[in-house]
Amino acid sequence: MQQQVREMNQRFYDAIEALDVDAMDGIWDTGSGASCVHPGGPWLRGWAEVRDAWEAIMANTGYIEFDVEVIDVRIVDPVAWVVCVERIRASGQGGGGVAEAAATNIFVLGNDGWRLSIHHASPIVRHALLEDDD
Amino acid sequence: MQQQVREMNQRFYDAIEALDVDAMDGIWDTGSGASCVHPGGPWLRGWAEVRDAWEAIMANTGYIEFDVEVIDVRIVDPVAWVVCVERIRASGQGGGGVAEAAATNIFVLGNDGWRLSIHHASPIVRHALLEDDD
Repeated sequence: MQQQVREMNQRFYDAIEALDVDAMDGIWDTGSGASCVHPGGPWLRGWAEVRDAWEAIMANTGYIEFDVEVIDVRIVDPVAWVVCVERIRASGQGGGGVAEAAATNIFVLGNDGWRLSIHHASPIVRHALLEDDD
Repeated sequence: MQQQVREMNQRFYDAIEALDVDAMDGIWDTGSGASCVHPGGPWLRGWAEVRDAWEAIMANTGYIEFDVEVIDVRIVDPVAWVVCVERIRASGQGGGGVAEAAATNIFVLGNDGWRLSIHHASPIVRHALLEDDD
């Protein structure tokens, strides 16, 4: 079960890297329970709003690569949450760069297998200020 | 069950407002599963680290008030997550001000009732840029 959740979590990041919004349809809860926060952003609620935002992000991204450190996977059947640090390298209309984000991904096991219900990602700012020693 | 989760969520914010770190012991999962992100911060892992950070925040806060908008409560027994917007008014060593944060709070129902396992709060930046019209 751990392995299934880890695989689904990886598929999610693979879909972003592939700029493949259609793949998201097979990963997310496509109902009203889906909610998403992009770093620095507000809550997006329900699959239509969440999907639209992914579509917009992908349309404005030339290249994006995730180095995802899975810090913890908790499974309390039929719910699982994955605690990650995302190291993101991207280029697009807003310029390029590397950013670090803390992410919580909540999956729920249903008839279609594990589906992503919450993706909450936030910029890690203090960490960089305190620990960067370049 | 909705009501119990909402009450526990409220108790959490009441404990912060009361600058009462001891109250947190009765709200959080006090084991290794507790994890927390403060706005802009990195992952804090395990109850000892999470508690220490609350203690430090409270020691440096003269006054803090939360206006919490609960956007959604999802219960997939024995797990619940609360999707919130926090409007925070605070004063302390770092100065005062009002800030908005998106929060995900994950509770797990155990022998001690609902316990907070994940608190992930992130600054809402774009929202302010796009929608503030002061």
